Amino acid sequence: MRIAVLNGPNLNLLGNREPDIYGTQTLEQIEELVRASQPSESVDIDWFQSNHEGELVEIIQSLAGKVDGLLVNAAGLTHTSVAIRDGLLAVDIPFVEIHLTNIFAREEFRRTSLLSDIAVGLVCGFGAQSYVSGMAALLHHLKST
Amino acid sequence: MRIAVLNGPNLNLLGNREPDIYGTQTLEQIEELVRASQPSESVDIDWFQSNHEGELVEIIQSLAGKVDGLLVNAAGLTHTSVAIRDGLLAVDIPFVEIHLTNIFAREEFRRTSLLSDIAVGLVCGFGAQSYVSGMAALLHHLKST
Amino acid sequence: MRIAVLNGPNLNLLGNREPDIYGTQTLEQIEELVRASQPSESVDIDWFQSNHEGELVEIIQSLAGKVDGLLVNAAGLTHTSVAIRDGLLAVDIPFVEIHLTNIFAREEFRRTSLLSDIAVGLVCGFGAQSYVSGMAALLHHLKST
Amino acid sequence: MRIAVLNGPNLNLLGNREPDIYGTQTLEQIEELVRASQPSESVDIDWFQSNHEGELVEIIQSLAGKVDGLLVNAAGLTHTSVAIRDGLLAVDIPFVEIHLTNIFAREEFRRTSLLSDIAVGLVCGFGAQSYVSGMAALLHHLKST
Amino acid sequence: MRIAVLNGPNLNLLGNREPDIYGTQTLEQIEELVRASQPSESVDIDWFQSNHEGELVEIIQSLAGKVDGLLVNAAGLTHTSVAIRDGLLAVDIPFVEIHLTNIFAREEFRRTSLLSDIAVGLVCGFGAQSYVSGMAALLHHLKST
Amino acid sequence: MRIAVLNGPNLNLLGNREPDIYGTQTLEQIEELVRASQPSESVDIDWFQSNHEGELVEIIQSLAGKVDGLLVNAAGLTHTSVAIRDGLLAVDIPFVEIHLTNIFAREEFRRTSLLSDIAVGLVCGFGAQSYVSGMAALLHHLKST
Amino acid sequence: MRIAVLNGPNLNLLGNREPDIYGTQTLEQIEELVRASQPSESVDIDWFQSNHEGELVEIIQSLAGKVDGLLVNAAGLTHTSVAIRDGLLAVDIPFVEIHLTNIFAREEFRRTSLLSDIAVGLVCGFGAQSYVSGMAALLHHLKST
Amino acid sequence: MRIAVLNGPNLNLLGNREPDIYGTQTLEQIEELVRASQPSESVDIDWFQSNHEGELVEIIQSLAGKVDGLLVNAAGLTHTSVAIRDGLLAVDIPFVEIHLTNIFAREEFRRTSLLSDIAVGLVCGFGAQSYVSGMAALLHHLKST
Amino acid sequence: MRIAVLNGPNLNLLGNREPDIYGTQTLEQIEELVRASQPSESVDIDWFQSNHEGELVEIIQSLAGKVDGLLVNAAGLTHTSVAIRDGLLAVDIPFVEIHLTNIFAREEFRRTSLLSDIAVGLVCGFGAQSYVSGMAALLHHLKST
Amino acid sequence: MRIAVLNGPNLNLLGNREPDIYGTQTLEQIEELVRASQPSESVDIDWFQSNHEGELVEIIQSLAGKVDGLLVNAAGLTHTSVAIRDGLLAVDIPFVEIHLTNIFAREEFRRTSLLSDIAVGLVCGFGAQSYVSGMAALLHHLKST
Amino acid sequence: MRIAVLNGPNLNLLGNREPDIYGTQTLEQIEELVRASQPSESVDIDWFQSNHEGELVEIIQSLAGKVDGLLVNAAGLTHTSVAIRDGLLAVDIPFVEIHLTNIFAREEFRRTSLLSDIAVGLVCGFGAQSYVSGMAALLHHLKST
Amino acid sequence: MRIAVLNGPNLNLLGNREPDIYGTQTLEQIEELVRASQPSESVDIDWFQSNHEGELVEIIQSLAGKVDGLLVNAAGLTHTSVAIRDGLLAVDIPFVEIHLTNIFAREEFRRTSLLSDIAVGLVCGFGAQSYVSGMAALLHHLKST
Repeated sequence: MRIAVLNGPNLNLLGNREPDIYGTQTLEQIEELVRASQPSESVDIDWFQSNHEGELVEIIQSLAGKVDGLLVNAAGLTHTSVAIRDGLLAVDIPFVEIHLTNIFAREEFRRTSLLSDIAVGLVCGFGAQSYVSGMAALLHHLKST
Repeated sequence: MRIAVLNGPNLNLLGNREPDIYGTQTLEQIEELVRASQPSESVDIDWFQSNHEGELVEIIQSLAGKVDGLLVNAAGLTHTSVAIRDGLLAVDIPFVEIHLTNIFAREEFRRTSLLSDIAVGLVCGFGAQSYVSGMAALLHHLKST
Repeated sequence: MRIAVLNGPNLNLLGNREPDIYGTQTLEQIEELVRASQPSESVDIDWFQSNHEGELVEIIQSLAGKVDGLLVNAAGLTHTSVAIRDGLLAVDIPFVEIHLTNIFAREEFRRTSLLSDIAVGLVCGFGAQSYVSGMAALLHHLKST
Repeated sequence: MRIAVLNGPNLNLLGNREPDIYGTQTLEQIEELVRASQPSESVDIDWFQSNHEGELVEIIQSLAGKVDGLLVNAAGLTHTSVAIRDGLLAVDIPFVEIHLTNIFAREEFRRTSLLSDIAVGLVCGFGAQSYVSGMAALLHHLKST
Repeated sequence: MRIAVLNGPNLNLLGNREPDIYGTQTLEQIEELVRASQPSESVDIDWFQSNHEGELVEIIQSLAGKVDGLLVNAAGLTHTSVAIRDGLLAVDIPFVEIHLTNIFAREEFRRTSLLSDIAVGLVCGFGAQSYVSGMAALLHHLKST
Repeated sequence: MRIAVLNGPNLNLLGNREPDIYGTQTLEQIEELVRASQPSESVDIDWFQSNHEGELVEIIQSLAGKVDGLLVNAAGLTHTSVAIRDGLLAVDIPFVEIHLTNIFAREEFRRTSLLSDIAVGLVCGFGAQSYVSGMAALLHHLKST
Repeated sequence: MRIAVLNGPNLNLLGNREPDIYGTQTLEQIEELVRASQPSESVDIDWFQSNHEGELVEIIQSLAGKVDGLLVNAAGLTHTSVAIRDGLLAVDIPFVEIHLTNIFAREEFRRTSLLSDIAVGLVCGFGAQSYVSGMAALLHHLKST
Repeated sequence: MRIAVLNGPNLNLLGNREPDIYGTQTLEQIEELVRASQPSESVDIDWFQSNHEGELVEIIQSLAGKVDGLLVNAAGLTHTSVAIRDGLLAVDIPFVEIHLTNIFAREEFRRTSLLSDIAVGLVCGFGAQSYVSGMAALLHHLKST
Repeated sequence: MRIAVLNGPNLNLLGNREPDIYGTQTLEQIEELVRASQPSESVDIDWFQSNHEGELVEIIQSLAGKVDGLLVNAAGLTHTSVAIRDGLLAVDIPFVEIHLTNIFAREEFRRTSLLSDIAVGLVCGFGAQSYVSGMAALLHHLKST
Repeated sequence: MRIAVLNGPNLNLLGNREPDIYGTQTLEQIEELVRASQPSESVDIDWFQSNHEGELVEIIQSLAGKVDGLLVNAAGLTHTSVAIRDGLLAVDIPFVEIHLTNIFAREEFRRTSLLSDIAVGLVCGFGAQSYVSGMAALLHHLKST
Repeated sequence: MRIAVLNGPNLNLLGNREPDIYGTQTLEQIEELVRASQPSESVDIDWFQSNHEGELVEIIQSLAGKVDGLLVNAAGLTHTSVAIRDGLLAVDIPFVEIHLTNIFAREEFRRTSLLSDIAVGLVCGFGAQSYVSGMAALLHHLKST
Repeated sequence: MRIAVLNGPNLNLLGNREPDIYGTQTLEQIEELVRASQPSESVDIDWFQSNHEGELVEIIQSLAGKVDGLLVNAAGLTHTSVAIRDGLLAVDIPFVEIHLTNIFAREEFRRTSLLSDIAVGLVCGFGAQSYVSGMAALLHHLKST
């Protein structure tokens, strides 16, 4: 099974960025954590980060037919990007939406996601653990459908 | 560590209730699944279901000082019960909000939760696996804080 | 054919409660009226009243597979109870929504019903006659489908 | 007793028009049904249909002092015609609003009626039976007031 | 100088229609009143009433180049007819909007007019006197521009 | 008969203030016009202008039992002053709301008046003539009630 | 004179529940305070607390004709329960709405009460003193009407 | 192939009506233009204009089974007529919505169309050319489906 | 202890102003009532009334450091004055908001207060007794903090 | 004459992307179709596609003074990009907005375009034919102005 | 060149008023700062402060033709005073809107200004420096136009 | 002291782009102006412009720990980019939001900024001078904190 993880704008700053909100782990550490949390043989993980909406769209496009599922943390683009939504609809790969923070406990505009209603499900609020839980839930979903 | 799982109205019907939306597992099967997913020695799980808002409030009250965390699937009351919100605020126990279905892909009124902004985090959309993932994320949260 | 009639909060007060709005008949008199309006042999009627949302949910649950249709006057819960909506969706029994008063001629918040869009139809504004007409319409619906 | 039944735009197409939504009966068949459902001697029924708001207004005006009650299915004009509302207010004849379909289970704009709050009551969702039930409820209302 | 007065739906009922709201004068009496209030030689008055939006549109069209100003009481169509607005824009004749009643002291939907912002001005709330005052104001406006 | 005319903020600037919107007549000229338009013997006119909400409130208070009617051009305070509304309700003197300009053809916030629904009627859009027409309509109203 | 005091969900937790928001007094201590604040002979006080909407409705029903007034702290149900509103309307007993906290200084949804507009008055923000002041105001109201 | 073109209120005034907005061509000239733009043998065109909503509804009804497609410029009725929408749904003929002007660059209320979501597509803003382009697009659609 | 009582616009009219809404007591009588309700030695009361927002602002400013608490009935300015809010914030004196009437049972715009969220608490609906109860609650608050 | 065609995010996927919504033609095939639909000598067509908002802005900038008109299908960016709007305003080249699908028959958020009100016109809903019709309308517009 | 600076309600309290929000400088110190920041010979500065809307309106009126520009800090009246807006429109003097605080980082109602859209520009958030920067920008604007 | 100036989409077109709105100066000229306005020795200025949201995010990221403050004119992205907001929050550098035009005097959507509430302050409406004033205010802010 092959899964891609997409990380949106500013997630490359993790560890430095508002650590009281986003935690002290870097994105590389989260990647390691996610890889470590999987039984070694069964899942190939592709890891992407971009600060560019267009690049994220193209990464999504390039994954069509190549991966079984996606873990998507679109960060700030979650609330504004119809293009990423359209890319995900276009490739038609099941995906789980994740967020490090609880987006419902922050600014009002973070409560609206352009991705949630087309996702399999949503995991948010657990810091790096959102990735681990999201990956587990995604894999479980893929195996059972 | 001791965790309570709260299940709101109509979840006792699981397996029979709109199986194309909620899946074919009964609540008992989900309970077993959750228990089975935990390393045996470390976590005590209390399991509750009620169709009554007042009863749920009182269960929450009774757990004050007794459990380390809560897994809350308030079902239809998620969107309407200030009393449950107040109960959770009163006992001040960290909790994770879970839903079997992706509440963002259904009726508009299911997009508003009275619990999300005071929860640690949210897991939804994975059927019974929402419980397993939510429990894992809750435990991870409790261990790391 | 078997039909259950569900009556929500405060309907047990009928006859005494704001008679200029709700009329002078008691709920028992309405029950008799409804029974009397049916040809004797053909329809069994179960009659319920509760002031508790949870109890109404459980009555609905208990009727699964037992009745052919429901007549639902959820009273004040009409506008606030997702749990009753979910219960009705869960048991998947055709139901008619009824109200004694014309809910469109009263406070603004009574114009929003959480049940209407999943009901077969709606009858309101005719006092006790709403029950009689609702029952007739429900029976006709059940016979023709 | 004399009752007029008003039918608004496109109801003359019944039977052909979106039969899965509106049923297969023609308006003439519904008229017969309504007439047949009344004890023969007691009620005179005048039956009108028009696709013109102005004509409907003038029919209503012409009925002042001539009929005891109205059954009004204003169809698409329900949601847009202040003129029909004003006509009904002007002649001050008790009327029941009816609809073939459940207007609460369709497009959002059908949820707003300019007639409901000045009607005696509302019956909707039962196809041709909405007419029969509405007529029965109207007659009952007229007799009891 | 030549002025046309346009009267919308149900105004033909005046005198009978809700006399506590609209007064006891008939439209004919108001017409006489308006004619009597003008110095005899100077103003020709054309008087129209229709319950049909389309007819009103066509009356407006027919007046292009024939009259110097319009007095418009579109009644219930005030709040709903883009077609009348478009007709008035098309013929480009200065007009005054009038209403018998104070439309701001009634139902919420009467507060929105599709004509006000393209009118010279508005007179409402004075019963038949709204016509007399509106005519005087219109004539004054035409003379001073 | 005794009538008071109230003029709100900035109306003392008339003639200089945005003449393309408000006209070139000064408030004194308008006062003369209004006085001249009345048959000399019958109506006493008190004329007030203030830029202060509190002063306008106190003028209104002082008129209780002294005048038969009011002509009120509250200018910018029309849209914001509950205190003036309360003053008018307190003295319970019939009043007509007037505006030089057509308030419906300007900024959105000018469409909301805190006075309209408690006024006898409204005249707007005719420049100084709004005063003359408003006075005539007010007098007619007072005579006929 | 006989007064009933109704306490809604979670008020049984007072003293423990978020003491920085709700204070350190228990509900029993508040009850004593209220009793102590009354001249001993004149007022009988019935004291109720329930976490169940349905139970509160039934308590209200049972008080019909038994008490002269009600002091109602519906807690979280204030903002969501049409059933309690309907119960209070049904028994038609004058009541005062009270809250320990200033509900206007908290979450947005606490600003909307389903009870305020049918209450005699509202007292909120004074902790236990809200009960004492509310009781005094209620008694004064009952004596003066 | 047979196509009907429907023109709503005030379009009969074209050429005279606000030429800076609607252009200088008359409706007859547009009709010629549309006919001329089609290869002569293949398409029969029926051309209708009415200022009456009811008449337009009846024209639509009369076309059921007679034409392959419709070109609809409902003019001001676009934004207000549920009856025309219902007529189009009833006859179930594919139609293209057209407007001479760019309805998105005008008053706010012109941005809402009751027809767009049930049309094949929309062409607006090109003056008479909207008809030509709309016809071409409609024909292409009919040929390819 | 020293307390100032602020009364906003039109409260000087009390007794005469809409007695069915505001009661028959004059403001002077209310002042006496408030003074009489206090144990004579302990509280000095300063009593102010103004119809001018600016004057009220300056009274508030002048009280900085001079009084321990404020009782504020801003009347119509409650709903519109940011300046009074800012004045109260500036002097930082604890205050209680009071109203003679139940502001939640009147016009919609009276439901929004610019003062409530920065007040200690709110008392409304009890006529003159609102002052007495508000004073008692304020004093209790000041003693307990 | 020289025309540029701009294609936004995900349009490079056409043919593969949700073919039931967007059709089976690739963007290259549409380009050919558009080129083929023009008389060979008269129009030069520049064809662009990008998934990057910034790139689209720069393409627009680079076209200033180089092309006579634009055909713009901004895809998902239609609803979110002020930057593209600003780019189009900056270069001041007439453009036609096109969409393959009927954006009014899809998700609510697709009904709002940031481009429509500054476009010449809009063509949508005809699949690849939207391009052909849009081009024809644009050319016609350019020739006639 | 002559510039007037207008200061609204409560700004006379500066230095004492919520110093963590508004800073510790008094209004006199800010005046000095502004005067000191200008090259001595070129600009005459008139400095005003009032807590009265009416007085501010009259100051504005008195400046007509006397000053070249205005610096306006209307404080709390910014969000509520149509009268000040009208005064500024009436005298037609270019003005810059300033605020000590960042009004976009405070209560929601401070985000709406009745002055911004008719100002030359806006400077806010820099404490006393807002005056200095606003003055510099205003002078630059006046010199360049 | 080191300051970076960020310029968003289309600002590279300045001088050519809608000169009546944005002025005739190029961005290079504005840069020179800003540099010239600073005392030579004290401030190093880094100047950036990009049409790409992602690039702007990365420029912001690269400035962390390198500059003391930012001057941000995000142009069209001001109203839509959560990613830029998140970038600014992540690097936690004080910044001033600037705009050439008065964004409150243009389209409605330009009134909402995703940056204002986290900025030190805002300067807009003064053309190139907005940069000069914004820089001065920023420097003053940095020196005083």
